Amino acid sequence: MTSQHDEWRELGQQLRVDSVRSSSAAGSGHPTSSMSAADIMSVLVSKYLHYDFAAPDNPRNDHLIFSKGHASPLLYAVFKAAGAIDDAEMLTFRRLGSRMEGHPTPILPWVDVATGSLGQGLPISVGVALAGKRLDRLPYRVWCLCGDSEMAEGSMWEAFEAAGFHGLDNLTAIIDVNRLGQTGETMHGWDLDAYRRRAEAFGWNAIEIDGHDVAAIDDAMARAVATSGRPTVIIARTEKGHGVAAVANQPGKHGKPLDDEAGAIAELGGIRDIRVDVPKPDAGGAPHEFPTEPFSLPSYELGTKEATRKAFGDALVALGRARGDVVALDGEVGNSTYTETFAAALPERFFQVYIAEQQMVAAAVGLQVRGWKPFAATFAAFLSRAYDFVRMAAVSRANIALAGSHAGVSIGEDGPSQMALEDLASLRAVHGSTVLYPSDPNQAADLVPRMADTDGIVYMRTTREKTPVIYPPSDQFPIGGSRVVRGTDADAVTIVGAGITLHEAMKAADLLAADGIAARVIDLYSVKPIDAETLRTAGRETAGIITVEDHWPEGGIGDAVLDALAQESPRPIVVKLAVRSMPGSGTPAELLDEAGIDALHIAHAARGLTGGGMASAGVGTGDGSQAGTTGVSR
Amino acid sequence: MTSQHDEWRELGQQLRVDSVRSSSAAGSGHPTSSMSAADIMSVLVSKYLHYDFAAPDNPRNDHLIFSKGHASPLLYAVFKAAGAIDDAEMLTFRRLGSRMEGHPTPILPWVDVATGSLGQGLPISVGVALAGKRLDRLPYRVWCLCGDSEMAEGSMWEAFEAAGFHGLDNLTAIIDVNRLGQTGETMHGWDLDAYRRRAEAFGWNAIEIDGHDVAAIDDAMARAVATSGRPTVIIARTEKGHGVAAVANQPGKHGKPLDDEAGAIAELGGIRDIRVDVPKPDAGGAPHEFPTEPFSLPSYELGTKEATRKAFGDALVALGRARGDVVALDGEVGNSTYTETFAAALPERFFQVYIAEQQMVAAAVGLQVRGWKPFAATFAAFLSRAYDFVRMAAVSRANIALAGSHAGVSIGEDGPSQMALEDLASLRAVHGSTVLYPSDPNQAADLVPRMADTDGIVYMRTTREKTPVIYPPSDQFPIGGSRVVRGTDADAVTIVGAGITLHEAMKAADLLAADGIAARVIDLYSVKPIDAETLRTAGRETAGIITVEDHWPEGGIGDAVLDALAQESPRPIVVKLAVRSMPGSGTPAELLDEAGIDALHIAHAARGLTGGGMASAGVGTGDGSQAGTTGVSR
Repeated sequence: MTSQHDEWRELGQQLRVDSVRSSSAAGSGHPTSSMSAADIMSVLVSKYLHYDFAAPDNPRNDHLIFSKGHASPLLYAVFKAAGAIDDAEMLTFRRLGSRMEGHPTPILPWVDVATGSLGQGLPISVGVALAGKRLDRLPYRVWCLCGDSEMAEGSMWEAFEAAGFHGLDNLTAIIDVNRLGQTGETMHGWDLDAYRRRAEAFGWNAIEIDGHDVAAIDDAMARAVATSGRPTVIIARTEKGHGVAAVANQPGKHGKPLDDEAGAIAELGGIRDIRVDVPKPDAGGAPHEFPTEPFSLPSYELGTKEATRKAFGDALVALGRARGDVVALDGEVGNSTYTETFAAALPERFFQVYIAEQQMVAAAVGLQVRGWKPFAATFAAFLSRAYDFVRMAAVSRANIALAGSHAGVSIGEDGPSQMALEDLASLRAVHGSTVLYPSDPNQAADLVPRMADTDGIVYMRTTREKTPVIYPPSDQFPIGGSRVVRGTDADAVTIVGAGITLHEAMKAADLLAADGIAARVIDLYSVKPIDAETLRTAGRETAGIITVEDHWPEGGIGDAVLDALAQESPRPIVVKLAVRSMPGSGTPAELLDEAGIDALHIAHAARGLTGGGMASAGVGTGDGSQAGTTGVSR
Repeated sequence: MTSQHDEWRELGQQLRVDSVRSSSAAGSGHPTSSMSAADIMSVLVSKYLHYDFAAPDNPRNDHLIFSKGHASPLLYAVFKAAGAIDDAEMLTFRRLGSRMEGHPTPILPWVDVATGSLGQGLPISVGVALAGKRLDRLPYRVWCLCGDSEMAEGSMWEAFEAAGFHGLDNLTAIIDVNRLGQTGETMHGWDLDAYRRRAEAFGWNAIEIDGHDVAAIDDAMARAVATSGRPTVIIARTEKGHGVAAVANQPGKHGKPLDDEAGAIAELGGIRDIRVDVPKPDAGGAPHEFPTEPFSLPSYELGTKEATRKAFGDALVALGRARGDVVALDGEVGNSTYTETFAAALPERFFQVYIAEQQMVAAAVGLQVRGWKPFAATFAAFLSRAYDFVRMAAVSRANIALAGSHAGVSIGEDGPSQMALEDLASLRAVHGSTVLYPSDPNQAADLVPRMADTDGIVYMRTTREKTPVIYPPSDQFPIGGSRVVRGTDADAVTIVGAGITLHEAMKAADLLAADGIAARVIDLYSVKPIDAETLRTAGRETAGIITVEDHWPEGGIGDAVLDALAQESPRPIVVKLAVRSMPGSGTPAELLDEAGIDALHIAHAARGLTGGGMASAGVGTGDGSQAGTTGVSR
């Protein structure tokens, strides 16, 4: 073994040297955080990782995820050693246009997901490992390199809990315990037992080693592979900056190139050009495929009532029956979001993630790494718990569908903790996202398969209350569209709503019609992308636009409409009706009234815009400015 | 003891009966989740909780936090038993205008914080306990009732980690292990050992009991009080719906009134009107006060450069020296956010929370419960990790200051995982929030004491790069204001920026001046509230407004400006320059260019608005519509 061990040590030194070199070339980066894990990676890629770098799409490849994404110099050094990139590209680290970004992203074909926000790689690895066990049913393994600092993130313990619960013996986490965080020592320093006790309590196999002893690393990885029924964590005592005395185990050496690059390289034995033959996966079978049936969307009869959340659940089952790649994840509220329907119909493709929204979104990201189409659902308010994971999923170029039920004050008695009032704003502000807010069950159902066909983060906001069916089952609702549910060429004012407020807008139009005011009503079911043309036309043809949303005034429907019209000339007046004070409990109707977003308040605002009852196609009077806060007498 | 035990059992039954009654009166709520913990609460308030309900502001009061906020019927039943509310008010549960909201909020003087988003009460309790140990230095205890379902939230383990690390023996968590979640059995059911192993691994004293055995509860609480050096968790095996056969330990009984209220009340022994004498805190000393010095803000000389994040750190120390109630929390990036300056100067009031942003924000909320003024700081991108905690902090009517550094693409090489590009949107969409984005170090410093004087969630976005000092040290920057940094009566176009983009806007104005175009430049350092009047004036006096932000296009500066002008007549054209494609690594200048938000792109957009070089005070030409995406030749 000695000569093999020497080779591994040499490769480890090369990975260190290359980490130093790329960081120095960039003038920034994390060489010391890379050097601590270099021996671990050397042994892993030499013997345990089964990966065909020439065929990153091989479904039987293992997965290597750097939860400590700041160790990107090490990852890129590994890619060079594996022959995936050349030295010159490695040295473009952190330059504009380079694939060697400061933290890894999937613009590199060998990178599954973006990391760099700590505490995300392991929960995502759980998702990939679940895909291997339960969906692909392939023997690939997931190797996840974790930092010790990130063990303070609760999401890591959600991952430990989930992996232990599911017995993911195809998952190996490696904690690079280099003792030093960004500003000082971690909570546990080199107390490896602290990590072991926690991991074992969560049901993991835990192995403590010296992370610079290649024999110990080899032994630990062999034991990880041999362990069945539970995941393994290798807790490796390492030195940050190991191998270069000026930085090894020194404070103040985080996240910066070494002062003396040449000296460091010399101390590490000079530049090498070792090429490692990474073991390839065996040539076994293809991923499992689930049987499918013809597609048949649920439908709801005009004149009846149903909640869009129920239609979402019904349609998800229909889609799942027709598409074997569709899977569902639940944050233990499946009887509220109606993913329980999917759980009952397609249990093999249903994942109960319990009340761990970060793990739920991370698992969705992990599942889509392997091409599955995840739909993850919880109360819309609780998706805020996973906002950083959604943000990072966009950096990962992940394709995931999220559904948030129980939006807005219209949920009623449960009160503000359960009311999503910021979800449209936060999810619109995710790069490349799609934000849908159906107003009708047939519409919601029609949008569900479209969600699966749309790249990026696709969010659907659903409503708790049953609302009238206003569209026939056969109608089509393309993403980016809208519907004029009432309107003529002679409309005096436009009302834009979606979800629960569309129905209030329609009632307001009835009230206004009784006053002789014709109101156009637009169903803005696609909040992002937005149907700017229909809004522009309405802006030109009516005295102004009233937007009504069961959401705070910032970043939702009103702001989306304003943005769509920002460069119109002339630009229509826009009056935003939204929730402006903290709601309490009450019935849905009471709370819609209190928030000033029910039919009466909408009609009042419309009268203000049209000059108090006289239809006017010209410029608005502007006296609707207090519409959202003025009391309405009845 | 028998007669006392009988009294406790009787009180437990009353709490059950009252939970059933209020939920039935409301027609919704969580009686079964209340009934499981009734005996625990009975013993707690009869013997262990020291609380003067007539004086909720008594600093020596214990704190009772329902992390399982859905058990509000039990909490309100306790309040009634303690004489804080009467039976009639209790029965207003979940009605409009009632203080008895669906989940507890601090509109009740005996409620410290809003709960209902699971997994938050315990991390907040850690904050209150830290206040007791390290700030107030008073012997009060924190009692936190947790659900078993919420143990799946990683934030609970952040709290276990933090409380264990800090040895918070003044904190007792009680896990009400009633086995049943919303949709089914929890991950661990009645496996109390699963919780014990985890808690012990995190350094806690763990006690397993039968949660319906009042003697066992008494004993466990006595042991909790007697334990020093570490927190205690009481793991109580309970039955959901205990005491009523029709619902006890039955699935499908979550979150709904009992079918047979009268039968249940009879089975529980009927309505009682027991009044419990809750022990009062002893009459000891007042909270600790920290010594102060005269206030002296740091200042930066005109013509020099400094990063606003550095000015924030400097000003925070100055404020901390002058105000003994100011405290700082760090997510282990204090050398980036510059809270390290505070840590060095005022270590007694500095809290290192490590990389656990949820716990950081929760601790801030907990500290402000006791009147401390917390400033919590991390990278702005990583505040997204705690978004649900910020959302709930607003429901808690909490007063906390948040600082996010490293905003936008201008951080440069680290790449998108570290770039906050959605923080303005997400934090604007928090009810009652204040969003500041200083452009200058003197301005940043001036805003820091204003943050401490502002109620609600007050967020400051700071910039990584050093930027020129443009304001003299004595200048005042009220929240809600803006600054016209360039402008005359004859300006052709307005450019609105803040932070890094203000400096690009000023450079653009120089470029435009060379072309004979006078540009007004507005520093929108207060994004929320916004200085609508200055924007309206600019809209009237110039051909249009260009907003420039180092942020996604949704929900940031551009949308805030559009909202402020929504009802202007006529309304100025607004061209939004923002980050529209996923950035990679690069230098700050390269990435500002690539995003189309540097001086050249701003000048290009301005030329488009003003008709290609000719100043015009009339309506814009509208050809700036592609300004954000059109290439700029140079």
